[in-house]
Amino acid sequence: MAEDRVLRVRSLLDTVGAQGRTALTAPEGKVIANAYGIAVPGEELATDVEEAVAHAARFGGPVVMKIVSPEILHKTDAGGVRVGVEGAADVRAAFHEIVANAKAYDAGARIEGVQVQELLPQGQEVIVGAVTDPTFGKVVAFGLGGVLVEVLRDVTFRLAPLDADEALSMLDSIRSAEILRGVRGLPAVDRWAIAEQIRRVSRLVADFPEIAEVDLNPVIATPEGAMAADIRVILSDAPARQRRRYTRAEILTSMRRLMQPSSVAVIGASNEPGKIGNSVMRNLIDGGFSGEIHPVNPKADDILGRKAYKSVTDVPGEVDVAVFTIPAQRVAAALEEVGRKKIPNAVLIPSGFAETGEHELQAEIVAIAERHGTRLLGPNIYGYYSTWNDLCATFCTPYDVKGGVALTSQSGGIGMAILGFARTTRTGVSAIVGLGNKSDLDEDDLLTWFGEDPHTECIAMHLEDLKDGRAFVDAARATVPKKPVVVLKAGRTAAGARAAGSHTGALAGDDAVYDDILRQAGVIRAPGLNDMLEYARALPVLPAPKGDNVVIITGAGGSGVLLSDAVTDNGLSLMEIPPDLDASFRRFIPPFGAAGNPVDITGGEPPSTYEATIRLGLEDPRIHALVLGYWHTIVTPPMVFAELTARVVAEFRERGVEKPVVASLAGDVEVEEACQYLYERGVVAYPYTTEKPVAVLGAKYRWARAAERLRAAGSSAVAGDGRALGGGS
Amino acid sequence: MAEDRVLRVRSLLDTVGAQGRTALTAPEGKVIANAYGIAVPGEELATDVEEAVAHAARFGGPVVMKIVSPEILHKTDAGGVRVGVEGAADVRAAFHEIVANAKAYDAGARIEGVQVQELLPQGQEVIVGAVTDPTFGKVVAFGLGGVLVEVLRDVTFRLAPLDADEALSMLDSIRSAEILRGVRGLPAVDRWAIAEQIRRVSRLVADFPEIAEVDLNPVIATPEGAMAADIRVILSDAPARQRRRYTRAEILTSMRRLMQPSSVAVIGASNEPGKIGNSVMRNLIDGGFSGEIHPVNPKADDILGRKAYKSVTDVPGEVDVAVFTIPAQRVAAALEEVGRKKIPNAVLIPSGFAETGEHELQAEIVAIAERHGTRLLGPNIYGYYSTWNDLCATFCTPYDVKGGVALTSQSGGIGMAILGFARTTRTGVSAIVGLGNKSDLDEDDLLTWFGEDPHTECIAMHLEDLKDGRAFVDAARATVPKKPVVVLKAGRTAAGARAAGSHTGALAGDDAVYDDILRQAGVIRAPGLNDMLEYARALPVLPAPKGDNVVIITGAGGSGVLLSDAVTDNGLSLMEIPPDLDASFRRFIPPFGAAGNPVDITGGEPPSTYEATIRLGLEDPRIHALVLGYWHTIVTPPMVFAELTARVVAEFRERGVEKPVVASLAGDVEVEEACQYLYERGVVAYPYTTEKPVAVLGAKYRWARAAERLRAAGSSAVAGDGRALGGGS
Repeated sequence: MAEDRVLRVRSLLDTVGAQGRTALTAPEGKVIANAYGIAVPGEELATDVEEAVAHAARFGGPVVMKIVSPEILHKTDAGGVRVGVEGAADVRAAFHEIVANAKAYDAGARIEGVQVQELLPQGQEVIVGAVTDPTFGKVVAFGLGGVLVEVLRDVTFRLAPLDADEALSMLDSIRSAEILRGVRGLPAVDRWAIAEQIRRVSRLVADFPEIAEVDLNPVIATPEGAMAADIRVILSDAPARQRRRYTRAEILTSMRRLMQPSSVAVIGASNEPGKIGNSVMRNLIDGGFSGEIHPVNPKADDILGRKAYKSVTDVPGEVDVAVFTIPAQRVAAALEEVGRKKIPNAVLIPSGFAETGEHELQAEIVAIAERHGTRLLGPNIYGYYSTWNDLCATFCTPYDVKGGVALTSQSGGIGMAILGFARTTRTGVSAIVGLGNKSDLDEDDLLTWFGEDPHTECIAMHLEDLKDGRAFVDAARATVPKKPVVVLKAGRTAAGARAAGSHTGALAGDDAVYDDILRQAGVIRAPGLNDMLEYARALPVLPAPKGDNVVIITGAGGSGVLLSDAVTDNGLSLMEIPPDLDASFRRFIPPFGAAGNPVDITGGEPPSTYEATIRLGLEDPRIHALVLGYWHTIVTPPMVFAELTARVVAEFRERGVEKPVVASLAGDVEVEEACQYLYERGVVAYPYTTEKPVAVLGAKYRWARAAERLRAAGSSAVAGDGRALGGGS
Repeated sequence: MAEDRVLRVRSLLDTVGAQGRTALTAPEGKVIANAYGIAVPGEELATDVEEAVAHAARFGGPVVMKIVSPEILHKTDAGGVRVGVEGAADVRAAFHEIVANAKAYDAGARIEGVQVQELLPQGQEVIVGAVTDPTFGKVVAFGLGGVLVEVLRDVTFRLAPLDADEALSMLDSIRSAEILRGVRGLPAVDRWAIAEQIRRVSRLVADFPEIAEVDLNPVIATPEGAMAADIRVILSDAPARQRRRYTRAEILTSMRRLMQPSSVAVIGASNEPGKIGNSVMRNLIDGGFSGEIHPVNPKADDILGRKAYKSVTDVPGEVDVAVFTIPAQRVAAALEEVGRKKIPNAVLIPSGFAETGEHELQAEIVAIAERHGTRLLGPNIYGYYSTWNDLCATFCTPYDVKGGVALTSQSGGIGMAILGFARTTRTGVSAIVGLGNKSDLDEDDLLTWFGEDPHTECIAMHLEDLKDGRAFVDAARATVPKKPVVVLKAGRTAAGARAAGSHTGALAGDDAVYDDILRQAGVIRAPGLNDMLEYARALPVLPAPKGDNVVIITGAGGSGVLLSDAVTDNGLSLMEIPPDLDASFRRFIPPFGAAGNPVDITGGEPPSTYEATIRLGLEDPRIHALVLGYWHTIVTPPMVFAELTARVVAEFRERGVEKPVVASLAGDVEVEEACQYLYERGVVAYPYTTEKPVAVLGAKYRWARAAERLRAAGSSAVAGDGRALGGGS
């Protein structure tokens, strides 16, 4: 059956293609709709009155009846149309009347019969469609019809194909979702029927790559079903781009040697300070890399006290990584040697390739690398750090704070911002990788590796585009159940208009598609550079929350109000404190303080009040996350607060109670030291802001919810480790 | 005429009030609508056929005709209703038919006539209403009818009464504004007719304080007009709260003595370290206050080397400010003495009043102060700073970086965050003021003063509520044409549901009303605490932009993309570079760099490239603001970039060319020093973020546009000084 439908559509598309057309006619669209079970108004030709009655009976509701005659073009003028005919008697009468009218209108007309067509019901207009996204390929779209989708662009996207559950989730992903559930006395529509239309469209475009766009606009949704008024199909004659794919095992093998090398060669190593080949050598040595470091330079015997080789082919033993620090023009020849030496990774620092318009030069090195099976990082990058291996293969300066976050950047400038931020905040890092032109290795390769790397607890990526959105989504879905993936997608607003032949196409601005699909893949999207950096710093520090109950404990009432705003802004929910817990909090706070949530212990309280309430917050299993608001006073100075909070949190963590605790410190400059002290002890704390601590907690929650969803969907081949919401940790 | 309508409505409301009702009947609503020219369907009773023809002719379009008979309740059943009757002949026929049907239905029925009612046209449903807001009093609301307003809460608010232009601006303040201009082939509606309905409703609620809520729901808007299907009016029996108002002259006189005092008394001054009365004395002395400082303490002869007085009444000469550092219970008695001494300002540091439930105690001191004409700051505050007078009347520590921003906070915790942030960033401050319980002095008093204070160039206020929203709006409208007013309104999201008898009432969540009305008053709303602090630091540093053309000059392509995102996010527009200017930029940058906007000078460029392009950006009068993206390289290290940028900007400022310049520095930790260097020289620069520099530029633009709008509207009694967009500076 399924195969049959594919054959029917294949044959139709081949015919259309042979005619050099890209737009399908309405009857062709109907053939496709029927083949894929996409509900459109049924229509049949009745050559006699009993056939008309039978067709109408099968459609079940009122029908439209129209004369079919090659001689009669203006059917209405000929009295050849009847709308809303229902019941055998009326159909019969209408048939006779239409035929009689037609004969009266043109006695010579050949009457081929009467077309009987289902009448579209009254209902809620929605739009279902599919487009071919340059990054993600086939995606389906759903929105409410009419002004909502046109003026407010209230539309949502998913990768095609999708299953019925995922299709159903689209109905709740639009801002006006409530309308489908019935408002203002209108009935709820049949949600499953709409989801089924989406699913079938997604199947259709997945089966036929040459279908570029599909519009069902509008689909009329009623409490009884959903029917498309019209189907519009547009073909593409552009061949789909093909990209060489590596298996997961291949990626992990080469990435392991890149990130955990035993032997590194530096092509273009130099004794001359100021040269990149000198900086890289120096950083490898100063960074404390314990593997072999082999300088390659035809004009030197010794570089920084190490034997230099004329060619990389002269280097003894296996080499894992060749770092290139030579000008672009000389890369191809040296890469040939790297390939012959069977070195699996070439790190191409030099610029002067595609980014300066030298596309052919870049294509040449890619071809060489593919021939030898060497993978390329770059070109046009600052290099990379693998801190747990004390590896600094960059022209920047070494970075030695080992920790849980792996950061990547497409741009060198952003890479420098990552380094500076990490250094000033002492962010614990497992790797920093420049991706530059992404001639070969890209985000999905890195994500695949970092997902497995035991040192990496969180991955944060700056990117401007994805070479292969599907591969990235696959890698993200495999990684997110284990650890958070943060993405800063630059170029959000530049997207703008794209030439499109369909309605859905016009709605699919790049960023709208990125946003929906990254969210579905469980990726945490950072709204800006600083947010990405803060998430990267905080997420590995915070334990995963095990439930939704957030409690604010604050010494400053004013901070409590702002922290509550931030909780709501970040999609978190303030726990409704049960009476017994309320009573417990009240025991510790002054009578004019406020229990409830925020728990306002008031400003003049001693350290013991902070300690008692934080203890209670950690102790009570109904509370899942704490947001602390500290107010600098003489009674409880900043470092006293920091020390007691860190001590209590550590004590509970030792007892196995791990809850995320974040803090906002309002006070004079001493609070900065207190925040650093707390951060280093697992309490994410910020001075002079009530927004940031809650924003990073919100990011951790977004990850925990996505991880839970992906695990539940079983969409990942990798078993979750149960660290997030509802997990066992 | 206007007086006549007031009399008619007054008489009607008095009658309703006498009956103890708060909801008006439909006919009563119609009387009010007619009195105020609010278009509702016309209806008249016709006792004979020619009267019916005349009524229908006057209404002009199709009408509804209904039998009027006390015996006939079910008019339709009786054949007594005709819809859409048009033209004299049809009206005549329908009249006869209705009467005949009625007689046939019930021969005994008394026929009083036929009601002729205008038929509501088909059109776009909108909603117009008015509510009584607890903060701002009478406000009008406008939104699209149906699901848009109900599901998406797409509604906007203004103070009532308003003029037609302001009413018209409401139509563009909703997200779905485009719909009213005609979409999907639908015609545009008569915008002035809608605006006129809004204006009339606003006049009605302004004229009658007891009208709590008005709903015109829906109003049917067509290309030809706008007519309310229905008017609903709800009265309130709660008397409006009265607050003692001071004249502008009175406020300025007492505020000047508060902020520029010659003599300060400290009630409760103490020699005992750790006491607030000791801290305040010490801070006044250590802060360098050059006026008189008089300790008051009945138990001491000398405090910190100064003669102490038993009572404030013993202090010689005039005293401008009495700072209270005694427990709440003793405040009333001391305040009596302060009043008798005719001291105009009492600064009440102690807590223990309304915030701990001691409302009576607070009311008592307010009454004492009012009797003596003494104004109160607080109670429950940290005190205040007036830096240009070297005055630190707080228990915190002195602050000595004089500058242009005045900051106020309702909460003490937020006050401490202000102090710490200002100190660590070296923010130039003119004043920091704690407002606490706001028993008397509040934001509008302070705004009135800071608007006139020549040292203050920007005012930033943290607030949780406004005692008198109208007074605040008046003060803001008078101030904004001269200097920016930033507000952090806490408690945004807590608003939630309020009991409301009307549709409009249910839509008027506190925050929605605050947001619209503060924006109309020209206030820049900060989304969070840290934003408020950054705006406060940056706005006095940045010159006002004189036009909309923003140009990004960047060494890091990656920063350029993110800065472009930020420009769009903040409602700014990237200049379209004209060909001659493009050519000029291209002369300075490598061939593979990108002119256009961002101008991408590429990463490896020397200082001269940054300098040449920045010079061009400042020189060309078509460019109004510069956003710089710096990338840390060996060729142009951070301090080299900072020095050259500051030098060039200073050179142009000396030549009278003042444009706002902001910068994002991507690099290793040395960029932090470079940012501080730049900031101190008038270039607002941040490390590790592309968002903040553009966000503060966006805030400056929002102010400049608001200032221009308010000046153009002539709504301020204070002449603008021409510093903003389009001004002359």
